[in-house]
Amino acid sequence: MGPVAIVGLGLMGGSLARALRDAGVEVVRGVDPDPTALAEGLRLGVITHAAASIAEAAEGASAIVVAAPVGLISGLVGEALGVSDCLVTDLGSAKASVIAGVGAAHRGRFIGGHPVCGGERSGVASSRADLFQGAMWFLTPTSDSRGPLYERLHAMVVAVGARPVAIDAEVHDHLMALVSHLPHVLAAQLIHQAAATSPGGREALRSAGPSFSDLTRVAGANPPLWADILLANRDAVLMAMTRHREGLERVEKAIVDGDREWLRQFVREAADGRERLRAPELVAVSTPWELTVGVPDRPGAISEIATALGHAHINIADLALRPGPPGGTGELVLVVADHAAAAAAMALLEQRGYRAEMGER
Amino acid sequence: MGPVAIVGLGLMGGSLARALRDAGVEVVRGVDPDPTALAEGLRLGVITHAAASIAEAAEGASAIVVAAPVGLISGLVGEALGVSDCLVTDLGSAKASVIAGVGAAHRGRFIGGHPVCGGERSGVASSRADLFQGAMWFLTPTSDSRGPLYERLHAMVVAVGARPVAIDAEVHDHLMALVSHLPHVLAAQLIHQAAATSPGGREALRSAGPSFSDLTRVAGANPPLWADILLANRDAVLMAMTRHREGLERVEKAIVDGDREWLRQFVREAADGRERLRAPELVAVSTPWELTVGVPDRPGAISEIATALGHAHINIADLALRPGPPGGTGELVLVVADHAAAAAAMALLEQRGYRAEMGER
Repeated sequence: MGPVAIVGLGLMGGSLARALRDAGVEVVRGVDPDPTALAEGLRLGVITHAAASIAEAAEGASAIVVAAPVGLISGLVGEALGVSDCLVTDLGSAKASVIAGVGAAHRGRFIGGHPVCGGERSGVASSRADLFQGAMWFLTPTSDSRGPLYERLHAMVVAVGARPVAIDAEVHDHLMALVSHLPHVLAAQLIHQAAATSPGGREALRSAGPSFSDLTRVAGANPPLWADILLANRDAVLMAMTRHREGLERVEKAIVDGDREWLRQFVREAADGRERLRAPELVAVSTPWELTVGVPDRPGAISEIATALGHAHINIADLALRPGPPGGTGELVLVVADHAAAAAAMALLEQRGYRAEMGER
Repeated sequence: MGPVAIVGLGLMGGSLARALRDAGVEVVRGVDPDPTALAEGLRLGVITHAAASIAEAAEGASAIVVAAPVGLISGLVGEALGVSDCLVTDLGSAKASVIAGVGAAHRGRFIGGHPVCGGERSGVASSRADLFQGAMWFLTPTSDSRGPLYERLHAMVVAVGARPVAIDAEVHDHLMALVSHLPHVLAAQLIHQAAATSPGGREALRSAGPSFSDLTRVAGANPPLWADILLANRDAVLMAMTRHREGLERVEKAIVDGDREWLRQFVREAADGRERLRAPELVAVSTPWELTVGVPDRPGAISEIATALGHAHINIADLALRPGPPGGTGELVLVVADHAAAAAAMALLEQRGYRAEMGER
């Protein structure tokens, strides 16, 4: 992979820089408004070059990764697209609002990303090459996305040890509101409510057991970032909060009615649901299978295929594009975990009118 | 300590039996409706005797501990009080409803308890002697409680490595609704909501990162027990849920208004609150101090003193009663962590009209 520019050298950007260096990327340039972060990044060998501007970092780059806090992403993505002609991606946890901000002329080159991982401490000094190891990394290609750029981004994500999952941006935001943003709000609200409660002088916060501490672990992390995330994903977060309150009203009714059986069922179903949390994605094992799909030479075809598989929880371990003649049909080669995954993928692709073949690899 | 009867030989009862045996209690009798639990308890050396009834287990006992699920506690406590003349306590996580169920004639002998600990797996086979090590163990003595029985219970809790904290039963239930029961409901509700959400086929439950898994760890544990807990602590749980929904409405308003500053402050204050979670109780260190308090020979005096200190987060490492003449004044000796704790305790006791002296131990 050619030079990569990392815009924003904190925990995420720094860790990605390290992981890319470990994966053999020779030139990793950093840009950051904070000169000490850049100096630290150079000193620690996290980046190979410190650039004074995105334009400087973008020179000859094969990808620009915007690793800035959510509130700054749209502006920096726009700037990066304007000064480059390569792939631009980001690492933010709200995607639709970033895509909406990309000008029509640049839509083919921006593909949003969101690695689902993080650390307790921020800053380039806390960065580590293995941060993405085994993590899900959502990618949100659109019908405008250029196939070869998606291929490049997929390869980059695999190179740093993560598991790329293509997903529709709206679907992504809806899901993250539920499994990440709402839980953060609830954790903070629990702490607030406990902090405001000390009947007879006994403080609720100092009367809690270890499980309360686990449940509220995320509360209070990075206030400016989280305020921005809630606003960037406003509609989906509000919808999740409304559904949450409706759900609680049903629980309250059962308690008021003394409906023991309903409450048991409520808890029992939660236990069943937790089992799904542990259900593994289909990941590459001993005998991977390969699919070869005919794809037309137009933007969006690979996005459509990758997203269909991502939504169906079929992991694409590897993805390679063999272009056909201009305007003709090329081939997309996908590697999936096993025969079952290949068969499921075949069915999905045929439903969508693609012709595909599969075979043991 | 004389023989102890454990009613209900599951994880909690079994662990307490083991811990008491390790602490030198020679006779620990178990009672359980499930004969295999009793046989297992005997086989593993958890208990020394299996009793066929509470009456049989209670013979010559110095304490009966009801270690049954919350829904059964009131009935078993009543039975234990009826067939004994010793201390009766329990381990349930809702206290006021149990106390309310105790007949007037027996109120002096029942002192509720709630060790704040547990394990993932239930059953006597999962029991372990160190389960209570370092755990908070709430005790809810009342104005009826006999001083020597509170002294005995305090000593028993200390003997198994836990930290007794006297607390008013209503205060306890109010606090637990907030730091334990509401969080359980929220975790279960999060799982339910995620389980019901799979836009475009992509399952929310399989799109969550490790923090969602942490946040919902308690969801789905022991459905019958948790249904009973929510009903046993009905009023406090409903109040906590109402406040929770009100709190969320304020967050929703800030998101709708785009009020970034409010949201930042909300998260920032949660971070401050989390710091309080970690604030240690004042526990015994190198130079403990001793308080000697004059106490009248009437039920409730020790309860009042212990509860006042518990509410003020002053840990009583040791507690001994030196009775005076019948109807006269005895002495209560309290050991606390250090000079500061002793001085704080002195001030509280004087406010309540007690005469006390303090000195380095």
